[in-house]
Amino acid sequence: MNNFLSAEARSLAPYTPGEQPRDQQYVKLNTNESPFPPSRRVLKALSRAELLKLNLYSDPACTQLNAAIAAHYGLRPENVVSGNGSDEILAFAFRAFCGTGRPVAYADVTYSFYQAQAALFGLEARVIPLREDFTLNADDYMDFPGTIVIASPNAPTGIAVPREDVQRLLEADPNRVVIVDEAYVDFGGESCVPMLFRYDNLLVVQTMSKSRQLAGGRVGFALGGEALIGALNRVKYSFNPYNVNRLSLIAGTAAMEDEAYFQSCCGTIRENRAWLTEELEGLGFTVLPSSANFVFAKSGRLGGGELYRRLKENGILVRWFDKDRIRDFIRITVGSMEQLAALTDELAQMLEEV
Amino acid sequence: MNNFLSAEARSLAPYTPGEQPRDQQYVKLNTNESPFPPSRRVLKALSRAELLKLNLYSDPACTQLNAAIAAHYGLRPENVVSGNGSDEILAFAFRAFCGTGRPVAYADVTYSFYQAQAALFGLEARVIPLREDFTLNADDYMDFPGTIVIASPNAPTGIAVPREDVQRLLEADPNRVVIVDEAYVDFGGESCVPMLFRYDNLLVVQTMSKSRQLAGGRVGFALGGEALIGALNRVKYSFNPYNVNRLSLIAGTAAMEDEAYFQSCCGTIRENRAWLTEELEGLGFTVLPSSANFVFAKSGRLGGGELYRRLKENGILVRWFDKDRIRDFIRITVGSMEQLAALTDELAQMLEEV
Repeated sequence: MNNFLSAEARSLAPYTPGEQPRDQQYVKLNTNESPFPPSRRVLKALSRAELLKLNLYSDPACTQLNAAIAAHYGLRPENVVSGNGSDEILAFAFRAFCGTGRPVAYADVTYSFYQAQAALFGLEARVIPLREDFTLNADDYMDFPGTIVIASPNAPTGIAVPREDVQRLLEADPNRVVIVDEAYVDFGGESCVPMLFRYDNLLVVQTMSKSRQLAGGRVGFALGGEALIGALNRVKYSFNPYNVNRLSLIAGTAAMEDEAYFQSCCGTIRENRAWLTEELEGLGFTVLPSSANFVFAKSGRLGGGELYRRLKENGILVRWFDKDRIRDFIRITVGSMEQLAALTDELAQMLEEV
Repeated sequence: MNNFLSAEARSLAPYTPGEQPRDQQYVKLNTNESPFPPSRRVLKALSRAELLKLNLYSDPACTQLNAAIAAHYGLRPENVVSGNGSDEILAFAFRAFCGTGRPVAYADVTYSFYQAQAALFGLEARVIPLREDFTLNADDYMDFPGTIVIASPNAPTGIAVPREDVQRLLEADPNRVVIVDEAYVDFGGESCVPMLFRYDNLLVVQTMSKSRQLAGGRVGFALGGEALIGALNRVKYSFNPYNVNRLSLIAGTAAMEDEAYFQSCCGTIRENRAWLTEELEGLGFTVLPSSANFVFAKSGRLGGGELYRRLKENGILVRWFDKDRIRDFIRITVGSMEQLAALTDELAQMLEEV
């Protein structure tokens, strides 16, 4: 073991990101990226004049970006904090709202980064199993004496949590923070944003990586009351005040302002998801009801690992988690029709041969 | 007090960044930015073709960027980890190498972000006073049973720490990590990079914000042996695996490859620093011997706060720290000759009126 590591760093549980292969061109359906390029407004905003200012620091307060986000949601800029992707925002939230005497709870099958961040801050974590059908039972969290993190739609299942369930948790204890990770909400989940006016203990986390075509730009944000946003800023200014670079500020602002393109991309993904789901079911797959830009599916005939490996051999990347309860599934990003047709053709051939 | 804050978040000591005014055009000499635009190679590399790929995640391993940095220093990519500015890298290092039973030591007058990060991770911190002349006495750290952080050149004084002093600290205890923050080293300090081959316990942190004209691009990095770099990656993958966005990866790589422009900019800053120092001394200022892209200076006739305020009223921003030992000083970024002439003209007039 590495002698230089602090005790805290020894007990870390680093996250394994999806493969980002650099050696070969794959049909890449493994990390829930958008198949569409960024908005033309983003390209235009990233002008030569802006590039020439890269010698100057970015605005630590993210003034314009936060204003654009606030405007989109009908909130005030004081209700917004932006970060270097929503992973950073989640880390800020874990530090701000969890700690000594304040444990964190999340589902057994969810975004595995929560576990990494709980370890990072040495938090006591309660892992609460989803129901047999992978839905979340809010009653299981009702008496939990700490901070609750819920992904809705959930990853990697795609299943959305009804807004009423979140509401019940918020009301059960107004001093308890409920973090709703809405990374995928723009593809059909019920957003909790409209409830921000009523609940001071609600934090909604979103990202521009999926529905706004900016995974490579790293822009995430949290929406909440001023007390929660103030707390996140305390952590941000202790960790990395200039956390969003100049070009990401510009790209995020422009992407947020291009409502038409956003809607068009989200709509196409929903159409493609319906097509993919139907095709997969036609091939005998069980597909969980997805509100996200991916589907979680299992074949009765080939295991998840087998599917993942054979698809990869044939130039198609999907994500497989070698974990209890979900080992039979593969997670497939809803890409372009061309990508999805390549996938279903390959799967059809693969299953014919079984 | 904010009821939602965890105990840990209550004891944070957030950093106050230098003013980044958005309301008015200032002669901005307060945050040690380069007065020069980014390298033409950076502008060229940030092509439309690259912007069109912003929908795809960045490479979490920062392969090309790390390779360019390693090539510049004659190291291997395994000796490099890149981050969202060197502030993020420092946070990773504080988490990786400090914690329970592993306190951290740094100077009383140094980059105040160390204090913010010590609070962020709840570290026991020993603050060791610099000598009367603001030089660091390595003997004071010799028996310290934890991780040592040294900025060289130091901020806000600009004074470099001799390499032999770092060497003595590294040798005194090979199990003790010494972090040398070389944010400003390219302007004349003695870099500790050549010692990396000999000392496994040495971590050198650098940034592209100052000498490579990329403050707005947020690219920092650490250089060290594989054990230390491996530890930093453990933290990175627990905190934010995709921590450097696509455009910053490209900009950082191109900036690192443009050796000629780098040297030219650093050379000009050194010339301008010599000119500024002479002018300030001519105006009766005491100027500490700077190896950085700023000078730390005090006038016998006007206090630091007074100088700061009057300059700001006249459209010139410098940095003033309202802190013991350094209250009389102002920190002035070494900008372009035009900026510096505006400053010295203003100071001359100001002091004439006293």
